[in-house]
Amino acid sequence: MGSYETRRLPRGGEEKDVLQRQLFVEERGAGIAWIKRDPYSPETVKGNIENYIGTARLPIGLAGPLLIHGDHARGEFYVPLATTEGSLVASYNRGMRVIGESGGCRVKIFEDHMQRAPMFRFSSLAEAEKFTRWLADKREIMDAAVSKTTSHGRLSDVDIFNLGRNVYVRFGFHTGDAAGQNMVNLATSQVCRDIAESYPGWDAVESFNLASKFCSDKKYSQINVLKSRGKKVTAEVEIPEGVLRERLRTTTAVVLDNFLSGTLSAIYAGCVSNGFHAANGIAALFIACGNDAANVAESHVDILDLRPAEGGLYFAATLPSLIVGTVGGGTSLPTQGECLDILGCRGAGNAGKFAEIVAAVVLAGEISLVGAITSDEWVGAHEKLGRNRPREDA
Amino acid sequence: MGSYETRRLPRGGEEKDVLQRQLFVEERGAGIAWIKRDPYSPETVKGNIENYIGTARLPIGLAGPLLIHGDHARGEFYVPLATTEGSLVASYNRGMRVIGESGGCRVKIFEDHMQRAPMFRFSSLAEAEKFTRWLADKREIMDAAVSKTTSHGRLSDVDIFNLGRNVYVRFGFHTGDAAGQNMVNLATSQVCRDIAESYPGWDAVESFNLASKFCSDKKYSQINVLKSRGKKVTAEVEIPEGVLRERLRTTTAVVLDNFLSGTLSAIYAGCVSNGFHAANGIAALFIACGNDAANVAESHVDILDLRPAEGGLYFAATLPSLIVGTVGGGTSLPTQGECLDILGCRGAGNAGKFAEIVAAVVLAGEISLVGAITSDEWVGAHEKLGRNRPREDA
Amino acid sequence: MGSYETRRLPRGGEEKDVLQRQLFVEERGAGIAWIKRDPYSPETVKGNIENYIGTARLPIGLAGPLLIHGDHARGEFYVPLATTEGSLVASYNRGMRVIGESGGCRVKIFEDHMQRAPMFRFSSLAEAEKFTRWLADKREIMDAAVSKTTSHGRLSDVDIFNLGRNVYVRFGFHTGDAAGQNMVNLATSQVCRDIAESYPGWDAVESFNLASKFCSDKKYSQINVLKSRGKKVTAEVEIPEGVLRERLRTTTAVVLDNFLSGTLSAIYAGCVSNGFHAANGIAALFIACGNDAANVAESHVDILDLRPAEGGLYFAATLPSLIVGTVGGGTSLPTQGECLDILGCRGAGNAGKFAEIVAAVVLAGEISLVGAITSDEWVGAHEKLGRNRPREDA
Amino acid sequence: MGSYETRRLPRGGEEKDVLQRQLFVEERGAGIAWIKRDPYSPETVKGNIENYIGTARLPIGLAGPLLIHGDHARGEFYVPLATTEGSLVASYNRGMRVIGESGGCRVKIFEDHMQRAPMFRFSSLAEAEKFTRWLADKREIMDAAVSKTTSHGRLSDVDIFNLGRNVYVRFGFHTGDAAGQNMVNLATSQVCRDIAESYPGWDAVESFNLASKFCSDKKYSQINVLKSRGKKVTAEVEIPEGVLRERLRTTTAVVLDNFLSGTLSAIYAGCVSNGFHAANGIAALFIACGNDAANVAESHVDILDLRPAEGGLYFAATLPSLIVGTVGGGTSLPTQGECLDILGCRGAGNAGKFAEIVAAVVLAGEISLVGAITSDEWVGAHEKLGRNRPREDA
Repeated sequence: MGSYETRRLPRGGEEKDVLQRQLFVEERGAGIAWIKRDPYSPETVKGNIENYIGTARLPIGLAGPLLIHGDHARGEFYVPLATTEGSLVASYNRGMRVIGESGGCRVKIFEDHMQRAPMFRFSSLAEAEKFTRWLADKREIMDAAVSKTTSHGRLSDVDIFNLGRNVYVRFGFHTGDAAGQNMVNLATSQVCRDIAESYPGWDAVESFNLASKFCSDKKYSQINVLKSRGKKVTAEVEIPEGVLRERLRTTTAVVLDNFLSGTLSAIYAGCVSNGFHAANGIAALFIACGNDAANVAESHVDILDLRPAEGGLYFAATLPSLIVGTVGGGTSLPTQGECLDILGCRGAGNAGKFAEIVAAVVLAGEISLVGAITSDEWVGAHEKLGRNRPREDA
Repeated sequence: MGSYETRRLPRGGEEKDVLQRQLFVEERGAGIAWIKRDPYSPETVKGNIENYIGTARLPIGLAGPLLIHGDHARGEFYVPLATTEGSLVASYNRGMRVIGESGGCRVKIFEDHMQRAPMFRFSSLAEAEKFTRWLADKREIMDAAVSKTTSHGRLSDVDIFNLGRNVYVRFGFHTGDAAGQNMVNLATSQVCRDIAESYPGWDAVESFNLASKFCSDKKYSQINVLKSRGKKVTAEVEIPEGVLRERLRTTTAVVLDNFLSGTLSAIYAGCVSNGFHAANGIAALFIACGNDAANVAESHVDILDLRPAEGGLYFAATLPSLIVGTVGGGTSLPTQGECLDILGCRGAGNAGKFAEIVAAVVLAGEISLVGAITSDEWVGAHEKLGRNRPREDA
Repeated sequence: MGSYETRRLPRGGEEKDVLQRQLFVEERGAGIAWIKRDPYSPETVKGNIENYIGTARLPIGLAGPLLIHGDHARGEFYVPLATTEGSLVASYNRGMRVIGESGGCRVKIFEDHMQRAPMFRFSSLAEAEKFTRWLADKREIMDAAVSKTTSHGRLSDVDIFNLGRNVYVRFGFHTGDAAGQNMVNLATSQVCRDIAESYPGWDAVESFNLASKFCSDKKYSQINVLKSRGKKVTAEVEIPEGVLRERLRTTTAVVLDNFLSGTLSAIYAGCVSNGFHAANGIAALFIACGNDAANVAESHVDILDLRPAEGGLYFAATLPSLIVGTVGGGTSLPTQGECLDILGCRGAGNAGKFAEIVAAVVLAGEISLVGAITSDEWVGAHEKLGRNRPREDA
Repeated sequence: MGSYETRRLPRGGEEKDVLQRQLFVEERGAGIAWIKRDPYSPETVKGNIENYIGTARLPIGLAGPLLIHGDHARGEFYVPLATTEGSLVASYNRGMRVIGESGGCRVKIFEDHMQRAPMFRFSSLAEAEKFTRWLADKREIMDAAVSKTTSHGRLSDVDIFNLGRNVYVRFGFHTGDAAGQNMVNLATSQVCRDIAESYPGWDAVESFNLASKFCSDKKYSQINVLKSRGKKVTAEVEIPEGVLRERLRTTTAVVLDNFLSGTLSAIYAGCVSNGFHAANGIAALFIACGNDAANVAESHVDILDLRPAEGGLYFAATLPSLIVGTVGGGTSLPTQGECLDILGCRGAGNAGKFAEIVAAVVLAGEISLVGAITSDEWVGAHEKLGRNRPREDA
């Protein structure tokens, strides 16, 4: 193990350490001129990265205007999308135009809380049941514990699930404008510590896991679809037949037939839902706005509801488990903060607004794709845009 | 609709268009000094973005060395991770150290093909069956069609699924070093066109969908887990008990108990798999190396297999549906190409190597997290690292 | 349509109608001597069947003793299993013997309620939200409605799920000793009627569905696994190493390795859970005891938890969604009532006891199968028993 | 353990053993007059049960005529349904009448094979890959092995799945008119034995499992939905608007709206599919006709496809994994054989016909239920029929 040590990277978070690491990389043969060019200062990225060597850059395209009638987001928005996938901005732009010409989309947040679900394993079924009963009316203990660790967070709900000797307690928290995973970890940890002190039968706990996979962080799960983790948001629009024909070169009847076939395909294939490509818009927004791209795993579920409407097509997208924040994480980094500024979403008081914008963006992307698919231009668009240049109307 | 037009963004991909859009944003009140600072030239990002206004920047941290014994990746690697989530690089770094002190990890690619699954809907069950039978021995037609559209791609397999009047044909392609979705779209489109011309019963096709949700692109699905989409890769290591104790402050017995509980939690919660947080490492690598972060949705499934081994712990991670490329997409952009250089993975001939590195990185992250969870330091680590500064040993 | 009428079956539920239908069948060429032999009287089966023609018969095998330490079932039970699958009774019998020689199994019911989840669809997202809020404190209206329709049933919990314009209200009821689907339909229908009368915004309800698939009746669903429908029951036992070796010719280490592999196989294949063949025992008990065999679809989920224990193997089976009753349905038919009698479970006051027995039987079956699989005698057992005769020790 | 022995049941399969067991039960206080009344002889049930004590009886109701245009089932059928759930026969009868008045349903079998998927675990990833490659062209060995064990069965396809060190080989067999699980066990066992002898690297097999959960027998799994296990069958009908109105008191528009809502509910709840209650008809037919009711777990998945059709409603039901047989299992028992006779399905040559009938019956049940739900009479029907007597038109 000794010799292994000698090969380790230079450590530390000072300017000189960054330079040493850059040198270390270059000595091994890789040129990193762009990565180290005009970088964020080590001070700037202190809480966001370790072993810093410079910055990765992704081009930002602007799409819009996107007309939203939400409870928090109201008016027209221009949306910064950071991506390297050609045609993506153009496609979302097209959907936004359809939304605009349809009079805008309505958006609403139905749930808003971040969860952590520790597991308590007991020495017997009887002890598991005893604990479950004891816990039922201990909300006071829990609220007190939470208030020790956070002034922004608040316990919203407690849901208990038994699986034999295992008791899962799914704590939900209002986390203000932060995505809130860290806040929730700390608060749940304190709650569990205080439960441990208060519960007379604690000796029967054989093992305890603060972060059981029941949570389930950074991965898709049915429980998060059903009970939400983060925010549950729906965006909807009614697209007049004329707009469908002119902008998307399709019709309500054709779209509905495609939607039904697609939904059955999704069921048959075991897809998470019947959405098209929510991940595209979400990833581009998350990267631009300093939200965690790993949460695409959880947030990409999109349940579509399309119906005939008077004079056109009803089109709704629900994101049951959208994890976003406008404070914390990468939100205050330079370009990230600027992108939030473009949306009018930087800092405290804006998480709801940002969530509504994300849902509206996803809606735009789904509309655009269904148009492309049903107008049979899809492959062409990918080819022309992806390999050469944006279309005229991007 | 007329007045709506007037509010539209300046279009075009020339330098002056970019400037006009930057001005457009600034006039609306958002400062974008960092976004437009020393940017990629419009020419550089031409095929990757539309409505370009500048670049988003994410800090890159370097983790490693990561010792890999793969078929393509062999030796020690230093891994650039682009993320804004504090503690992530430190955590992966810790896992890589464990792997190194355990003698390195073995990695193997078991499947390697990109799919597209068009749907043909027929006017009757009998016609659906007739087509299914006709198609069974038409490989020649298909191969010829593919060769019209690509010199790099090659049809690897054709799998037919019936759902009543719907026939799904799941075409698999070897796509060389590209992730390959565009190549596969074009090739499948041509195959379908040639099938349409050759099949005598084509009049019975009521609708055709090149991109049915059966594919299933940009979203998790069970079919992609089962039959793979992209690459199926496994990374494994045997961790000596001493390394477990010293580096992770845990033991084989404790880890295995946690693993079993976690696996049951995952089944009970309806998780995609029993992995921990593969999405973290994958997203950070994808962003750094110009791969599409939206594919985290598909690629984040990670099936863990932990067992007792002689003198320690066997730890394996399988990514059944990892979508990566080293050509195309964002791989040739400046910082992205440099990050691929750091891994020795830029350009043609390196997709297999890159896939093996991704799997090894995921393995490192899972090892580190299981260590953190079972050594009960998890919350502390998040708090200290995320809010203040990297740990000494990052 | 006229001529179609003439071919219809004789109707009616009187003795003479039964005879006419038997004649109708025989005239068409089918002999039904056994079906009509010494039948249940039409009066006996009045509420259980329409167009009655006689009885189907399945052989009953008796397995046991099964030693149970439950909250309701206590002592040794002999279990009637109605099946036509050779080796099934012998296999369950073997598992029961293992349980007995291990000192019996402990069983506990963790949840106990039957659900119905109507869907209310609103004319807008805002109306959906308004209704959700209004409903939050209307428990009094609901309880009053329930009491109009049932004296046995009681509303236990109300859980609200939003999906855009759709509001699903999942009502849970304690249904006494009946499986309770009918009771729950009536009560929920009344609750919805009273909600309709009380809610000032009812005009905004565009459609209402008492039995949305969200329920989800007669089919497996993740929500019923997570939140239970019917009873959630766990049975567990610790099997001494000596019993494992002597009765199952296997060892704790071999079983645990098989269990882990099997659990990963189940995750990979997209199985409902990691259980083996709970459906076998459940179907045989349901048929014998007048419970609805169609509920095998919902009830067959079985989550296994196997661990090393001191001196042997810990083995637990959880049935998250077991639907059983000892009153109503087919429970009071002649042979069905007798089978319940054999278990001491006929009639009111016995549903909990019966549920515990079902879970213990499932546990026995899982133990037996894991033994057979890991002792490599599985194929042989099937062949010998299924095609020839029971083994000596059945 | 000694005293435990003394309490054991009388063993053996002779007449006298049956009587002794009956006595044993009666001495413990349970009356079993109906169970032991005029029983099947022990000889009759020899291969179907162990520890026989008499017969369970379920009332059979006859529904029909059911007009089928299949490849195997052609003409009108009267269908024996064994159930204890009041209103079930009446409901299916109503659906059959709708089918008849719509001109009958078309049915087609798209896949027909039974699977067994053993798992081979290797000592390294490299060995797993080596075996996978070796196996690719060993069809000859496999076919030869199969022919040693069965004259009716034939290997239809071999599908290989890798999960790290685990290799799953999913063998599909045509099993003639038997459901075929036993045949497939024996054949697969022999194949594996011959593989073991032929494969030069067999020493690298660390464990082998003939019946891994990947199969997946007696439980729902996505792989069996996707790739079928047993038979994949679709039944479809076009219902004229007049029939919808007259018989079901509903309309195409209302049904389609309900169907769409129901499908989204099913996705949201994590249901296996968007079907209603296929388990009801399948269980009743399986019990009546000597098929294994435990297979309801696998067979109950039903994917519905409803669309507007010219002059009415297109209604299709696909059962992707229907496990049926007309020989073996309980098919030759007295009442079971008679029920198969009523359908003209007894014995060899009839499994396809029986499968088509099952699919048509499921279709009838789905049509009837959707009618009941959308005509708002559902609760009433359950109450009146279930608690009192059949409706006039049953």
